[in-house]
Amino acid sequence: MTETGNRANTTQWESEEWYIERSELNPGFGIALTKDRVLFHERSEFQEVEIFENRLFGNVMLIDNLVMVTEKDEFVYHEMIVHVPMCVNPDATAALVIGGGDGGTVRELVKYPAMERIDMVEIDRMVCDVARQYLPTLSRALDHEKVNLVYEDGIQFVKNTPDSIYDLVIVDSTDPVGPGEVLFTEEFYRDCIRILKDDGIMTNQSETPFVGEDMVRGVCRKVREVFPFFRPYYGVIPTYPGALWLFGFASKGVDPLHDMRTEAWNRLGLATRYYNTALHTACFALPTFIQKLCE
Amino acid sequence: MTETGNRANTTQWESEEWYIERSELNPGFGIALTKDRVLFHERSEFQEVEIFENRLFGNVMLIDNLVMVTEKDEFVYHEMIVHVPMCVNPDATAALVIGGGDGGTVRELVKYPAMERIDMVEIDRMVCDVARQYLPTLSRALDHEKVNLVYEDGIQFVKNTPDSIYDLVIVDSTDPVGPGEVLFTEEFYRDCIRILKDDGIMTNQSETPFVGEDMVRGVCRKVREVFPFFRPYYGVIPTYPGALWLFGFASKGVDPLHDMRTEAWNRLGLATRYYNTALHTACFALPTFIQKLCE
Repeated sequence: MTETGNRANTTQWESEEWYIERSELNPGFGIALTKDRVLFHERSEFQEVEIFENRLFGNVMLIDNLVMVTEKDEFVYHEMIVHVPMCVNPDATAALVIGGGDGGTVRELVKYPAMERIDMVEIDRMVCDVARQYLPTLSRALDHEKVNLVYEDGIQFVKNTPDSIYDLVIVDSTDPVGPGEVLFTEEFYRDCIRILKDDGIMTNQSETPFVGEDMVRGVCRKVREVFPFFRPYYGVIPTYPGALWLFGFASKGVDPLHDMRTEAWNRLGLATRYYNTALHTACFALPTFIQKLCE
Repeated sequence: MTETGNRANTTQWESEEWYIERSELNPGFGIALTKDRVLFHERSEFQEVEIFENRLFGNVMLIDNLVMVTEKDEFVYHEMIVHVPMCVNPDATAALVIGGGDGGTVRELVKYPAMERIDMVEIDRMVCDVARQYLPTLSRALDHEKVNLVYEDGIQFVKNTPDSIYDLVIVDSTDPVGPGEVLFTEEFYRDCIRILKDDGIMTNQSETPFVGEDMVRGVCRKVREVFPFFRPYYGVIPTYPGALWLFGFASKGVDPLHDMRTEAWNRLGLATRYYNTALHTACFALPTFIQKLCE
């Protein structure tokens, strides 16, 4: 196997190892990062977990050799999956996070003073343990007093959850291949809508339309089958292939634009680096080809 | 030099060559594409020009080993650099394009019925010739009757241009390293504003804030020194490192939001894949960290 690059610039990297993210979802295309130092690499009961250091993006977590988070750009994903629904209901008191073992999602949720209880269900304890050690800026809220972290199968957890108890369900999953696939099924979404209050909201990561057209179409269709209201929105994550990353906003009728509480959210004075209330409205204005995919 | 990837998926690519875009602007990070077939590779008087075929993104043009365009995602860049200013002045009759040798920018401009004359100044004839041969979907407008293509230095061209003759100047440059650097100077911007009519607009590509913070800050500062009105906006280009790509909208006072002509633009019925008038407004709503960079 060989690879080429900018010959004028190679000298300083001559002896270095490049990781190229490869996936059947985007053949022939990937994000490349130098593996400057491997800090952790083990197989858990569920998957392969690796942490390496990169000079530009900081510590990088791979699961089954795909980039999950990097220290430098994780804020986009976590702010967008949390603050978009929370701006619609900043008084939410009960949230469920499925997946999200690195801790970035609960880190954003605990910022809300009204939030009382966050149930977090991560199937793989190793992901949390590794995040605690190597991704402290993400994982610091995993042990927050508002967070009830359980190591369980998310599918089983939602099945066993009583009706109408959550304001918010966040599906912070891996890609819909392998263990994450069940988190992209209608059956799972039916449990999600059941356990949400009447004004409850579900957000989920919904892949990228640039290299995963069919997958995006599939996610949108399935969520729409179950939820009366669904609108996709996006953020830009440079270390995810395709970069323009979709999230779904699903509810029984609550609308992220008409029902957003701009003033209430801004009064909270939360420190964010990507999200703001102008961008909240803007992130639902999709490029034309994506609108067509999600119709 | 070695590189690693998803071992589970490597079999089919075992004998294939990966190109990794490397730049001192983003050390340790790059976009990787399989070089499925090299179609052209020569050095012109100015730079190294290469075309290769990639299974996902189609034909890819490299200049000095950096990705300029790919057939699959070039529409984002070209629609955003053209339709954002043109929606503000859909009756524009005279435009100047600096650079843009692949032809994508003039392809979008010739769609406007009111447009009478597009001067295009590309320093390197080889770029146009190669685009004509290997990027026909981009280059087809290079020989359009409205297009006056000259192979000259853009800096000299604007110096020799009379005052106040253009409605629109588009700076479709390479990165501000090497030959493209002069297109990011105050001196150049002073000529641009001089040759624009009073309601004229300049748009330029302004790099990415994820991996080029200093460069973005520099471009914004320099344009602001010269133009009374400046606002950055963005599009998402998966094969550019950082993906969230900034463009600048600069004028003597014309404002892209207050002065946009939504109905007039929509009446034209232009076929676009990324741009639409809702996204026009949205693309000026920048993530918080980028607002701060561009202040």
